[in-house]
Amino acid sequence: MRYVVIMAGGSGTRLWPLSRKGTPKQLLKLIGGRSLLRLAFERARRLVPDDRILVVTGAPYLDEVAADLPEVAPGNLLGEPEGRDSLNAVAWPAAVLAHRDPDAVIAQLTADQLIEPLDAFVEALEEAFDVAEADPRNLVTLGVLPTSPHTGYGYLHRGPALPGFPTACRVLEFREKPDAATAAAYLASGDYWWNAGMFVWRATTVLDQLAALEPDTHAKVSELAAHPDRLNEVFPTLRKTSVDFGIMEPVSQGATDARVVAVALPIQWRDMGGFASLAEVLAADPAGNVVDGDGVLMDAEGNLVINTVPGHVVSLTGVSDMVVVHTPDATLVTTLEGAENVKALVAQVASQAGARYV
Amino acid sequence: MRYVVIMAGGSGTRLWPLSRKGTPKQLLKLIGGRSLLRLAFERARRLVPDDRILVVTGAPYLDEVAADLPEVAPGNLLGEPEGRDSLNAVAWPAAVLAHRDPDAVIAQLTADQLIEPLDAFVEALEEAFDVAEADPRNLVTLGVLPTSPHTGYGYLHRGPALPGFPTACRVLEFREKPDAATAAAYLASGDYWWNAGMFVWRATTVLDQLAALEPDTHAKVSELAAHPDRLNEVFPTLRKTSVDFGIMEPVSQGATDARVVAVALPIQWRDMGGFASLAEVLAADPAGNVVDGDGVLMDAEGNLVINTVPGHVVSLTGVSDMVVVHTPDATLVTTLEGAENVKALVAQVASQAGARYV
Repeated sequence: MRYVVIMAGGSGTRLWPLSRKGTPKQLLKLIGGRSLLRLAFERARRLVPDDRILVVTGAPYLDEVAADLPEVAPGNLLGEPEGRDSLNAVAWPAAVLAHRDPDAVIAQLTADQLIEPLDAFVEALEEAFDVAEADPRNLVTLGVLPTSPHTGYGYLHRGPALPGFPTACRVLEFREKPDAATAAAYLASGDYWWNAGMFVWRATTVLDQLAALEPDTHAKVSELAAHPDRLNEVFPTLRKTSVDFGIMEPVSQGATDARVVAVALPIQWRDMGGFASLAEVLAADPAGNVVDGDGVLMDAEGNLVINTVPGHVVSLTGVSDMVVVHTPDATLVTTLEGAENVKALVAQVASQAGARYV
Repeated sequence: MRYVVIMAGGSGTRLWPLSRKGTPKQLLKLIGGRSLLRLAFERARRLVPDDRILVVTGAPYLDEVAADLPEVAPGNLLGEPEGRDSLNAVAWPAAVLAHRDPDAVIAQLTADQLIEPLDAFVEALEEAFDVAEADPRNLVTLGVLPTSPHTGYGYLHRGPALPGFPTACRVLEFREKPDAATAAAYLASGDYWWNAGMFVWRATTVLDQLAALEPDTHAKVSELAAHPDRLNEVFPTLRKTSVDFGIMEPVSQGATDARVVAVALPIQWRDMGGFASLAEVLAADPAGNVVDGDGVLMDAEGNLVINTVPGHVVSLTGVSDMVVVHTPDATLVTTLEGAENVKALVAQVASQAGARYV
């Protein structure tokens, strides 16, 4: 049967003070009162019934995830005792699901982006499930059609098409964050897609790859699936590495008899990496101001104002292109450009004002 | 005997959201945790004992004034039921004190400025008291030696010196807010002082002027002195006018047999009219930032940050010359330049977010 695993981890300091150690960005109700996680869940339920949707997140966030997604049974919420990078956010759920259902096929989805249109997303994932089910050798990765020579994304080099599928093709190579000239050449060639960081595969297939490439991880996640009570003891000992380094790149280079297949994800995606991207997504008034919460602006243009505190008014005058974020215990004032440095500011806030603010 | 009346009225919207309808700027603890009113009181007690210091303020502020100045007896706090301009803030206390002590001599002082050095202030006021006591015709006004051709102040045109006093001289004319060329000529001539808006006079002398020039006001404040219980009924019927228009200008033009005398006030004064002047007064760090309360600044220069909320951190990065003011229910973000428009912003906040914020 088909399952979805939603990955919702990370601390998201780039959206501080909205995001905190205890509230990563996927849990923030940024989009019309809904969180990125909630939006990911709504996408997932277009693919499978609610009881086959799992969420893997940090253990400290389990309560908030449960509150945000009451439809997900507690047994389907996987809380990592500590972050051990993406290989383990993939390996642990695969072992858990293989233990429940040896025929499980898993779509491993992210919750970091806004994705539109939804129908195209669903159609692409259906194809990816079909490809994964058609051949136990197939590890499917989703590829977004690039719209710019972005240097911050990973790229997939597309190879021969898979007969019988609308978009599926072999992947020749993974390329992480190219320089600007390379990215421009990739875009011009039409042979490269952005690596969406979403995967579809049989649970047994990904576990077989682990057994071959990361045998220690394979043994440990299998142990965790059989003995969930050993989580806090075993999980922190997992080797910390990414799914790209641990599985996808070696398999694409022929390290096992599996193969990496890409399926096109013909969507607009917006990575919610910081306030600048958030400002692009939210609706602006005629003066170009985005105001979420109580705000009064006079002689002000192109500002992003987020105020999460009812009964408090945030007011701006004579300023443009500012980011002002007000929360119960912390206020950020910066520019759209300066917002890129929020991560460094958060470190200074922690050392200067106290760790309780971050 | 000598008395001091401190005038502490006005709503002070130009320091919003620090100042509110319920908290005028004189009550804000801006200067090392002390209010402008408190500083004025500390000046006053250099002149007279605490029990001879009165404060005239708006009735809504009486509780806050009492809390700020516990040394002042309730009977010495005069709360105006509504603002009726400066003539009545002078006339009412004069009538009250004349009723208590027919020989009362009053220094009527403001609480809007920072004044340094204190010793020079005390010496000037002692001279002013001496001048007022020397001749019942003398109405003494204090004159600040101008340091710039300021067009926002009133000017005193100095006439012949009064024999026997260090600085006292007759006043030939009052001139309100001159244009720039006139102000420059005044400064160059050396014959003009800034009108400090502070006065020293016998209570009976100022009441005699009122009887001659504003008989209705004279009758009403005399009635109030004898029957304080009629305050709410009578005070709102007082003619609304300034002490300059009501007394000082007509007397300087020979309307009565009294005379206006100026005494030099050789001080630095800083009018706390807005955030720009506040930023000049408070101590800046090496990057030119003035931070009052919990604030964390990174890559930020020349900013004024005032945060009145303990347990809340205000953080800035990538910005310069900003004004950020955070209070429990309102936050202001503007530039030092834009702060000039705060009064207009406050009107918009009241209409758009609610009158409770102003």
